[in-house]
Amino acid sequence: MNNEIVKPSILPGFMELLPADQIQFNKLSDIIRETYESFGFMPIDTPVIEKSEILLAKGGGETEKQIYRFLKGTTDLSLRFDLTVPLARYVAQNFSGLTFPFKRYQIGKVYRGERNQKGRFREFYQCDIDIVGHNELSILNDAQIPSIIYTMFSNLGFKDFTIKINNRKLLHGFFEALEIKDGADVLRTIDKIDKIGVLIATEELLSSGLTKEVVDKIFEFINISGSNQKILSLLNDLNISNENFQNGLSELSTVVKYVKLFGVPDTNIKIDLKISRGLDYYTGMVYETFLDDYPSIGSVCSGGRYDNLAEYYTKQKLPGVGISIGLTRLFYQLNEVGFFKNDASTCITKALVIPLDDNMDYAISFAKNLRDMGVITEIYLEESKMTKKLGYANKLGIPFAILIGDTEYQNKTATVKNMLTGLQTTVDFDGVYEIVNV
Amino acid sequence: MNNEIVKPSILPGFMELLPADQIQFNKLSDIIRETYESFGFMPIDTPVIEKSEILLAKGGGETEKQIYRFLKGTTDLSLRFDLTVPLARYVAQNFSGLTFPFKRYQIGKVYRGERNQKGRFREFYQCDIDIVGHNELSILNDAQIPSIIYTMFSNLGFKDFTIKINNRKLLHGFFEALEIKDGADVLRTIDKIDKIGVLIATEELLSSGLTKEVVDKIFEFINISGSNQKILSLLNDLNISNENFQNGLSELSTVVKYVKLFGVPDTNIKIDLKISRGLDYYTGMVYETFLDDYPSIGSVCSGGRYDNLAEYYTKQKLPGVGISIGLTRLFYQLNEVGFFKNDASTCITKALVIPLDDNMDYAISFAKNLRDMGVITEIYLEESKMTKKLGYANKLGIPFAILIGDTEYQNKTATVKNMLTGLQTTVDFDGVYEIVNV
Repeated sequence: MNNEIVKPSILPGFMELLPADQIQFNKLSDIIRETYESFGFMPIDTPVIEKSEILLAKGGGETEKQIYRFLKGTTDLSLRFDLTVPLARYVAQNFSGLTFPFKRYQIGKVYRGERNQKGRFREFYQCDIDIVGHNELSILNDAQIPSIIYTMFSNLGFKDFTIKINNRKLLHGFFEALEIKDGADVLRTIDKIDKIGVLIATEELLSSGLTKEVVDKIFEFINISGSNQKILSLLNDLNISNENFQNGLSELSTVVKYVKLFGVPDTNIKIDLKISRGLDYYTGMVYETFLDDYPSIGSVCSGGRYDNLAEYYTKQKLPGVGISIGLTRLFYQLNEVGFFKNDASTCITKALVIPLDDNMDYAISFAKNLRDMGVITEIYLEESKMTKKLGYANKLGIPFAILIGDTEYQNKTATVKNMLTGLQTTVDFDGVYEIVNV
Repeated sequence: MNNEIVKPSILPGFMELLPADQIQFNKLSDIIRETYESFGFMPIDTPVIEKSEILLAKGGGETEKQIYRFLKGTTDLSLRFDLTVPLARYVAQNFSGLTFPFKRYQIGKVYRGERNQKGRFREFYQCDIDIVGHNELSILNDAQIPSIIYTMFSNLGFKDFTIKINNRKLLHGFFEALEIKDGADVLRTIDKIDKIGVLIATEELLSSGLTKEVVDKIFEFINISGSNQKILSLLNDLNISNENFQNGLSELSTVVKYVKLFGVPDTNIKIDLKISRGLDYYTGMVYETFLDDYPSIGSVCSGGRYDNLAEYYTKQKLPGVGISIGLTRLFYQLNEVGFFKNDASTCITKALVIPLDDNMDYAISFAKNLRDMGVITEIYLEESKMTKKLGYANKLGIPFAILIGDTEYQNKTATVKNMLTGLQTTVDFDGVYEIVNV
């Protein structure tokens, strides 16, 4: 046929990987899933397309500008921009079929038509867990969250990372005690302080009408530091009687106490009063996670406590706490900083059976027997030169080539070539199995 | 807050499951992935959204009517309607970075705005493998395909299923020998013969201008039956010298010969000359798979050989062979026929630690230690009545509740309750581990 060629390309802002990278990506995704499951979270899988009236029930803000929204016939559709709104809809819709506290994980793609820039994606994976209570949810769930983050990043191969925690009731209570009218505005400024710097943040706060004295107090407060115990004790010494402040302090103290029992070492968890997640709907504990060796990546796992998950879809009161990992961005950033460089082979296949001479039948049986023993085995079925056959194993990083020629066929053996060292040895089936099943 | 409530619902034609069903679904998906990987297929993950010019490069047909297509700004976008067109684009785009034969699997959602009817989905998972060669691809790959299907459905728990195979060169060669002008039309009719019946099929063929004699010969041909060897020998006896026919017969014979070596029992594979996959782009071997106990489900895994994967995106010649499982539909149908009824618990969690009295600290440590030993363990953190705590385990199908009261705390023991039998026993940590780690 003589077609016109359409230049093959994908849309900007979409990530697509070559197989070796995809295998690496899937490894991370598998670890995240296994970790979530090990804590008893159950999978759900909501549609990528939802009714626009559902996804935009809350309305307003950045969301509406970035959303992929379109008509199909006369139906107003949108692609989900996070997994939280679909969760809210799911819990409200399936309320009577669920057991509370409802613990679910979801790993899936979400869509945001963001401005196109390096490291920002328009299609990306979110990996979320949430624990949703009916009417009430114990603060102990908030204390378990850091242990899930800790287990996660340990499983992912990190040792030096810091889970920063804070409490928004504490912040709001402090602002109330200072008689600040719009605490939410202050939160938003604090939230971006690491990006904009102290000077600009100060200006912003002053120009919002706060006095120099109040602004100084805010900075003094958010910079309180020391061990977690020390910070709690300093907060206590402030003698602020505001109810929100006291509730926040009590929650923070409970979390710090129990988080140790849940298995998080002191070195991996730190109260940081600058953490506010100002743009989100959180109402209590908040979390952010930083990789100590890669500070430029920013928070790699964050979340918090909210009062009411699904107010737009049900009158049931559903408080919850959850965290999210933006896997596509995390993978991209880790790749950029060279994190995967020293990683072992990303090849799934363990052995490539290569028939030489005219021994296809024996080679096929040999490969089948290895696979039946649980060894991931391929067989090279094309007629090509030996160099091309070995080149296939080499390019894909297959660790062992199993050569089968006339001699091997006659003696019921095979020659195993270690593709890394080049060493080769001729042994029987059991010998091959022993070598490749490492 | 006092919001207006938006009734929570999803779009018609979209599947969404409760967690227990989702766990069952994921089991199938995991088995499919593991089977594909065990044969050396590598994962890729292409974007759900592509440029419309890419997805519609081929143009025409049902596809264009069913596609989800929309503008974002001035960009013309579409949601992928299968995984084959994105594969073609991927291979063309990444040609120089891939190793051939390129063996990839992809499991992902695709979108078709089909007429809304029971068992038809507008968002559904496809699970595809393809082996794509550069310029050439050995027929032995076609012979290995049934062994992958066989391993797959064995792993999924089926014993009685039939992989039906045929060859389109053989069919076209036969039609050419009968001097039929438009063999493709005949193929389309044959393809739907099980749905429309022989009478209507006959009428259709006659009204297309074929003589009664020719139509009789077609039916005689497609009804040739017997063992695979018998069919091959009858086909040989027809003494049709047409080149296509002879090539098809040779391919079919090679596949039948090698498929045995690849490990497919005779009882699971059958030449069926009625299998044509008339609507697809296949050019050689074709496959369909039927579950003997559930004939109403139709083909659960099908595919075939094609001459040129990516002709719309590159001038490279890329022959290939692949199969696809429509997992969403398969799951739905198996659920409908009661396939999962006798299945074991779909609960991932093995043990629920329940603190009684005031032993939260000990309970948390106990749960952590079990989890560290690899037992998927939850802890009930809410303050509730004992019945509610046990009810949680019961509703979710968690097999063991581990009760920790004052006595257990003092003696460093725990009481394990088997939630199925109701039996309970008080033992130390090692004893608990032994009981729940079954």
